[in-house]
Amino acid sequence: MGVRAGIVVTGTEVLTGRVRDLNGPWLAEELRRLGVDVGQVVVVGDRPDDLRTALEFLAAGNDLVITSGGLGPTADDLTAAVVAQVQGRAPRLDQALEQRIAAIVARLSARFGGVRHPEASAIATRKQAMVPDGADVLEPTGTAPGLVVPVAVGRVGPPVVVLPGPPWELQRMWPAALANAVVRKVIADVPELRQHTLRLWGVPESDLAATLRRLDSELAGLEITTCLRDGELEVVTRYPAEAEPGLWHLVDAVGADFPEQLFSADGAEVDELVARALSDRGWSVAVVEAATGGAVSARLTARSGQVVGGLVVTSITSITSVGSVGSVGAAGAVAMAERARAEFGADVGVGVTAVAEESVHLAVVTPTGERSRTVVAGGAVDMVRGRIGPAVLHLLREALTRSVRPG
Amino acid sequence: MGVRAGIVVTGTEVLTGRVRDLNGPWLAEELRRLGVDVGQVVVVGDRPDDLRTALEFLAAGNDLVITSGGLGPTADDLTAAVVAQVQGRAPRLDQALEQRIAAIVARLSARFGGVRHPEASAIATRKQAMVPDGADVLEPTGTAPGLVVPVAVGRVGPPVVVLPGPPWELQRMWPAALANAVVRKVIADVPELRQHTLRLWGVPESDLAATLRRLDSELAGLEITTCLRDGELEVVTRYPAEAEPGLWHLVDAVGADFPEQLFSADGAEVDELVARALSDRGWSVAVVEAATGGAVSARLTARSGQVVGGLVVTSITSITSVGSVGSVGAAGAVAMAERARAEFGADVGVGVTAVAEESVHLAVVTPTGERSRTVVAGGAVDMVRGRIGPAVLHLLREALTRSVRPG
Repeated sequence: MGVRAGIVVTGTEVLTGRVRDLNGPWLAEELRRLGVDVGQVVVVGDRPDDLRTALEFLAAGNDLVITSGGLGPTADDLTAAVVAQVQGRAPRLDQALEQRIAAIVARLSARFGGVRHPEASAIATRKQAMVPDGADVLEPTGTAPGLVVPVAVGRVGPPVVVLPGPPWELQRMWPAALANAVVRKVIADVPELRQHTLRLWGVPESDLAATLRRLDSELAGLEITTCLRDGELEVVTRYPAEAEPGLWHLVDAVGADFPEQLFSADGAEVDELVARALSDRGWSVAVVEAATGGAVSARLTARSGQVVGGLVVTSITSITSVGSVGSVGAAGAVAMAERARAEFGADVGVGVTAVAEESVHLAVVTPTGERSRTVVAGGAVDMVRGRIGPAVLHLLREALTRSVRPG
Repeated sequence: MGVRAGIVVTGTEVLTGRVRDLNGPWLAEELRRLGVDVGQVVVVGDRPDDLRTALEFLAAGNDLVITSGGLGPTADDLTAAVVAQVQGRAPRLDQALEQRIAAIVARLSARFGGVRHPEASAIATRKQAMVPDGADVLEPTGTAPGLVVPVAVGRVGPPVVVLPGPPWELQRMWPAALANAVVRKVIADVPELRQHTLRLWGVPESDLAATLRRLDSELAGLEITTCLRDGELEVVTRYPAEAEPGLWHLVDAVGADFPEQLFSADGAEVDELVARALSDRGWSVAVVEAATGGAVSARLTARSGQVVGGLVVTSITSITSVGSVGSVGAAGAVAMAERARAEFGADVGVGVTAVAEESVHLAVVTPTGERSRTVVAGGAVDMVRGRIGPAVLHLLREALTRSVRPG
């Protein structure tokens, strides 16, 4: 199996979904690129017993264990102490580190008018400077230091890399973790594990399964996973370099079986393809949207520099005033797309409207034609937006990359 | 410790972050309300060995194990088979179930013009009708059935509840899982574990830690976790009914130490407070935003029915044409907020602008005054939006709920 790593993400706020875990997936992907295989991520609340059993579980099947979070100044931040215990190393105060952390805290506090509670701040700093004996310190990228903690002499187990919870702190500390001698020893000379992604629009999983079954023996050495969401089917293949011929069999066969539906053979997301197509044609785009309340504009502006404006309308009155009165439904969406072009002087207009309860009408008007579609999307606001977003992006993609009938 | 449950979330797409896990947090929260304690969620890729060790790990410390995902028709969907093996039960074809699934698939396919690949569809249906011998079937809410799988006779271990991966299917199946006799036996008579949330804006974690240390002995029986993100400090307390007096000590002390910063003593989120304040005053709101590209409008419209419009501007030209030429920076944000009021006939206007690289200027203008603020928010587009969103909402909250100086 090569080198394997396990990840522990700590924090009751993550366990209960109040905060989305960005660290587990980020670390899994970074490790995959290095050729290190991650099979399990354990999310634990802020309880020492649960963290300890999670560390012991992952130690049994992995060459490296990485933790994120639990390094803050409050009593529920207990990762360093539990890792010290599991690795059989006593915690000790690193006084030089304490001074470096104090200097960081002083500098940060200065921005906000100085330390408000010096005593509370000193206690917090001291807690963050408690380090398992024999561990290497990774310099703080926020206020908390990271740690590389080998198992105690005479015992057997993988080293544990302790990283902070805030994603940008963790990501900035990662290069130092990889440069650490203990970590380098584990991941040296690991052969790279590659990854390739195909994306299809409008294909049921069972149809793809038939293609995969037919190819079966030609796919040796590939690890293929599929995932369907909001109409997009994502096919991800992980493979060692020597299995690459199998990957190309797969790409060819999926392209032959689903020529219209395979919209991305190189993993590019629909947002990126739309941004590229707009940029290649030098076309600007603008949006007039009801039903999605700004979410379509937000999605387009996040990836494309070609957006020149957006208008969010929320009432029947404003929707019908944007189109002509009475032109609701599919015709209303086209009227809104035309209005988007006129209002912002854009080459491409996008209209999203919903007057009936369950149906959302989408339209794209370009200099060379128009396309429209109706999506059935009842339910909670997040679910409606989750379905309409991809539908709008794919309608745009089709309008920009295929021949369109004259408008 | 009472009754404990462990959760396994399957899917390489979740492990690697291509899909956000909504099921682990949702199940953890549902179980908490029932008084069942969840300490660990394990995310595993689509590999039988990793799933098996995760199930064995959770079986050791829990009274109930719940899985989500891996019930689809492709070969990487292997949960039912692995659970059968771990629980010591042989898989068998449930022919009546196979017919029910086939009927569902036929009905779904009819909407899209009929089954395109009948043979592929039949194989997929048969796979989904393979059930561990002695398990109870939970009727499909999509196409996949759920399962309740007790451990084989003569062996020791918790029952495993197998649920589908798509969040709405899982959530619709959950009542049937709770009604199952095997599950009811585990969770009968569990005392409820309550939860209370405080939210503060602009308080460092170390200051709150000082308050918690001072109260220490008065907080017996409370499990308190804190989480700081984007300037909001969330304090979540989980407690059994008899520890309620400690909770009120905590609420009083936090209110006394941070009277200005404690904006929610009952867990309500800032979005909800803004929506309520707008509704209470009968004020409509409109947004003109640069820098956030529609994200502020999208956030407001998702929770409030008082939004009458939004305008997304993206270029320096359109920003300065919205304000008066030259009035960029803080004054530009106020001009944009005024424009939002005028353009959409709104009572409250919100302006968000960024002309310099790092600084985003925010302004709120109400019928009785105005407030503005500058946020330093450099970095990737998601990070910028992540910081500005809360800042805008809190500026709105302050403008709507506090006395404001005349504009």
